[in-house]
Parts: sequence; C-alpha cells; structure tokens
Amino acid sequence: MQQTLITIGIDIGGTNTVLGVVNKSGECLFDTSIPTQATEPFDKFFPRLCVAAETLLARFDEGFELVGIGIGAPNANYYSGTIEQAPNLHWGDVVHLRKHVQERFRVPVAITNDANAAALGEMLFGAAKGMKNFLVITLGTGLGSGIVVNGDVLYGSDGFAGEVGHIIVQEGGRDCGCGRRGCLETYASATGIRRTMLELLADRTNASVFRDRNFADMSAAAIATAANDGDTLAKQAFERTGEILGKALANVIACFSPEAIILFGGLANAGDLILRPTQRTLDQTTLNIFKGKTRLLFSSLMDKNAAVLGASALIWRELEKQ
Amino acid sequence: MQQTLITIGIDIGGTNTVLGVVNKSGECLFDTSIPTQATEPFDKFFPRLCVAAETLLARFDEGFELVGIGIGAPNANYYSGTIEQAPNLHWGDVVHLRKHVQERFRVPVAITNDANAAALGEMLFGAAKGMKNFLVITLGTGLGSGIVVNGDVLYGSDGFAGEVGHIIVQEGGRDCGCGRRGCLETYASATGIRRTMLELLADRTNASVFRDRNFADMSAAAIATAANDGDTLAKQAFERTGEILGKALANVIACFSPEAIILFGGLANAGDLILRPTQRTLDQTTLNIFKGKTRLLFSSLMDKNAAVLGASALIWRELEKQ
Repeated sequence: MQQTLITIGIDIGGTNTVLGVVNKSGECLFDTSIPTQATEPFDKFFPRLCVAAETLLARFDEGFELVGIGIGAPNANYYSGTIEQAPNLHWGDVVHLRKHVQERFRVPVAITNDANAAALGEMLFGAAKGMKNFLVITLGTGLGSGIVVNGDVLYGSDGFAGEVGHIIVQEGGRDCGCGRRGCLETYASATGIRRTMLELLADRTNASVFRDRNFADMSAAAIATAANDGDTLAKQAFERTGEILGKALANVIACFSPEAIILFGGLANAGDLILRPTQRTLDQTTLNIFKGKTRLLFSSLMDKNAAVLGASALIWRELEKQ
Repeated sequence: MQQTLITIGIDIGGTNTVLGVVNKSGECLFDTSIPTQATEPFDKFFPRLCVAAETLLARFDEGFELVGIGIGAPNANYYSGTIEQAPNLHWGDVVHLRKHVQERFRVPVAITNDANAAALGEMLFGAAKGMKNFLVITLGTGLGSGIVVNGDVLYGSDGFAGEVGHIIVQEGGRDCGCGRRGCLETYASATGIRRTMLELLADRTNASVFRDRNFADMSAAAIATAANDGDTLAKQAFERTGEILGKALANVIACFSPEAIILFGGLANAGDLILRPTQRTLDQTTLNIFKGKTRLLFSSLMDKNAAVLGASALIWRELEKQ
C-alpha cells in the first residue's frame, strides 16, 4: 500500500507553540497548539511539546508515514540545530533542540528562525512558487527577513544571516532592542509605525484620533483603521514608514537583485496603505539596471497557518535535497 | 600521455585587455595584452582578441589541453553571456560575447563582471581558499563587489546582483555616475577619497600638501603617501573613508554574515591606512551576534595577475560543477 507522506511543522513563539501535520501539497491536515510558557525551562517545555506532537500523530493510521519534522523558532540555528539566547525564551544559552526532537521521533529534523521558515513556506506553497531568488520581509514586532539565493535560504557563515531589520538606516536614530540606534526595524515594523505615530503627534498640529489615546491603544491595526477613516496623521505614518522601507529595500535590491520581495506579518495586513508608499519609493530610488524588475508582493499564506506551513516546508526542502 | 589542462583568463578593461594561460593551480604560465581601443566597435575588437589568444596558445604543444575560457568584463552577464551597455565600451546595447568566443574556440566559455571574477579568483587561488560565504570589495574608480554565498557567486534573478557600491549611504549626498546621490562608491573608492580630500580642504584650515595641487594630482596613492608623511588632512581623508566603508560593511554583514570581506584594488594598496578605520568602525557598529566573526582581509592576489586569475577561476569553477 502506498503511504501518504506527512511532516509536522512546529512554530515556537514567545506565547504559543503551534503544531500542524502538513502533507507535500502544503495542506495542514490537523493542527493544535500549546502555551509556550516561556518563563519555564526547556526541560518543562519539551515533554509537553512531545505529547502534543504524539497526540496529533495518533490521529493518523498506518496509511500515513511521518517523514520529518520542521521547526521555526526564535534564534534557531539551522547549522547547529540549536536555539541560542532567544530573548523571549528562558531556556538558557544553548538548547540542542534538533537533537532532542530527533532522538524522540527518529525522523529527520530541521530548525531555523521564523523568517527563514516563512521564506521556505512561500517558496514551496505560497507567493514565491518557482522562484529561486527572493526575500520575505516579516513586518511584526520587529522586521525579520528570510533571504533565498539560488533556491536555498541564505544562512551565511554562522547560520544567522538575513538580519535586514538591523540594517542601520538612520545614524543616531531610534533606540533599537539590539543596543544600537537607527535600525530599520525601529521604523519599518508594527512597532516602528507606532513610534512614527508618536513622532507625528509631536511634529504636527493636525487633529487625530490618537491625540486622546495612549501608546498601548496605538496599534498598527488601529493606525490602519484611522488612515482608512481619513485621519491625516495616520495616513502620514504609513507614508513615512513606506518611504523608509522602500529606501532600505532599494539597497537590498542592489545587493541581491531578487525576483520578488514578499511582505508578511502584522503591518502587511494594512495592504495598499503600506504597499503604495513602499512601491512608489522603490520606483523612485532603485538603481536603474534593477528598476521595475523586483516585484513587491504580499504573502499568499497570511490567511493560512503560515508559520506551520513554513516550518513544514523547511523539512520538505531538506528531504528534497537528500 | 597525460595532458596538462589549461584555461585562458581574459580581463577586458576600458584601456587594456589582458589574456593569460592559467593552470589549475592558479599559475599564470604566459600572458599578453592588447589595447582594448574602447571607441572601436566590437567587430574590430573581436578579431584582435582572437589573434592574441591564438598566439598565446601557439606557445603550448600537444602536452597541453585548453579546457575553457573565462572572461571578466564590465557589465558582463553570467546568465546571458552578453555584455550589456558597458559605459566604457562603445559596443552598442548587447554583445553576445560568450557565443562568439565559444564558436571560435570550441571550448566552454563563461563571462562575468570583474568583481565577481575577483571573488572567484580569491576563492580558488587567493585569500578566500576554502571559504563558502564571503565578499570581495574592489576599491578602484568605483566600488565593485563580488558576493559568494554557499560557494557560488550571487548573480541574483537577472545576473546583475552584487552592486554594494550603489547602496545609498547618504541621502541627498554626493552625485553618483548612476544618476542618483549618496551611493557608497562616491565615498569609499579611489575616486571617493579624492572627493573627501576636496571636502576636507573646504572644511578645515589645516596646512596640507594638497592645498597647492589640483584634483588631477590628488590621486588615492598621493593621499596615501601624504598620510604616511604626516599630512593631517590626508590622514583624516582615510579616517572618514574607512568610517563610511565600515558602517556600510556592518550593514552588509547583517545581511550576509560572511566569513570574510576581502578588500582589493587601488585604495586597498594603502594598507593599514584604510584597514584600521574600517576595522575599528566595524568593531563598533556590527550587530552583536556578528561581532568579531567576519574577518576583514586584503586580497592575496594583488601582486599577481589578479584579474586574469579571476577570469580563469570562473571557468575552472564551471568545469568543477559539470
């Protein structure tokens, strides 16, 4: 009997860990989630993760074969299979995640960070199908990037390449969580646009719904709603954000000449509000030989279980290479 | 009888075209050069190129076998095998260089631009031996870059990737030949440091040997000599140049996490004068997780026929892949 091959994709986030069983077409057949409880040590988390995965697998009869497990997690290193000093997980310096999972489930396991997993998800199942040179930019709390060159994720010499969010775009600019100033993600991210909103409230005298709100109520989604309702400063916040993002992406294009740059995550939900100023700035500032070549797209997995699909894509891609 | 395998490496420059016969160890056995006569059409240049190559080959008896020809040339596209709109060559829009050479010599031919050829030269024969992730930065009239990812040159979607010299580092900054302003190469290149010297002569009141010279006599080499002789402004010119280069390279490291960045070309001849401020700035500004990982090196081919070795490396690498 021909068995249906399946993988488990696991997305470990600071709050929740989502697991899904994904087939080769990128269909998530079943999924589940557990609280990460990030303040717990890894020894407490790991058994709960295993139980969740085994419970999922118990839903499949012998007509299915588990061929691998892919995991997306903060600070996960593809080469070493470890998670190193993830700021939101209290797991200590180095956790040998790949080894632990491999020993337990006896199948190939691969791990990488969430942005790289997102890039692989787009390549196998999403907007980057058939592409060999592209970037995924995740615009969430920070700005993450997954870079694909010649069909492979760019891991660099140490497994940590692809920190486009930490390109410094403004010398002496905004404080960044990395300890430096002026990093792209302090401007172009869901958090960045909130800081830009504050800046505009300081710079301008226009009326705005945000004059009566505190920073906690100034979410990227709220700024998008206000912009669509005609709030001048909210519209300007998207303009400024898109301009800074567009200029940075023009520099990225000069390095990589990618076929596409795919936007994903919280801020990307704002649609044209963020796309238009970014595209306009790209059109204006991209080096002539690259003008009009790189398409700016949205993820086609945003309504789906994108992080789980990405983690699954990681292991499908590994199996392809073998 | 075992034949010795040889390649021809050809470096087409705006002034001269250099050809060399190179063996697999990266030894240039014989070389020659012809004037490019860049104002001539390609139809005039090509027969002269062929005669030069055939004259070189005539020096080798049947104990040698020509296995391929590699060519480095401005605006050469690896994918298409064409030279497109090279600003210094009056060859028209598109010249099918690879096809012409292949038809004449009946061996595999590969072409790419000079910075990519330099990167391959370093990987096969020079400072990047054994490395799989590194960049070569050529600091000449402009700033060129050859980027190697996973052991392959990064060509991007169109064959033109790797334009680190056209990262915009100063909005509204110096006019660039590309029609935009503030590109890295307008600051960090042999030409860039001359412009910085002019800027310093304007900004400062210090005495300097350059107060009595015109721009033509203000070469990068002359600035290096003056700096070594204690000229304050010449020393500052190197400091400013290295700082701008270091900041840009910190951003490049955030993207690529390379094992090394290798400096090459006119300005690299200045040695410690350019290395020290660049390294110091890198140490200060690189993102924590990458700090101290990427080595800043000089090319080890600068005393040799680097461009010809690079062009030869291109075709040796192609043959390896087959």
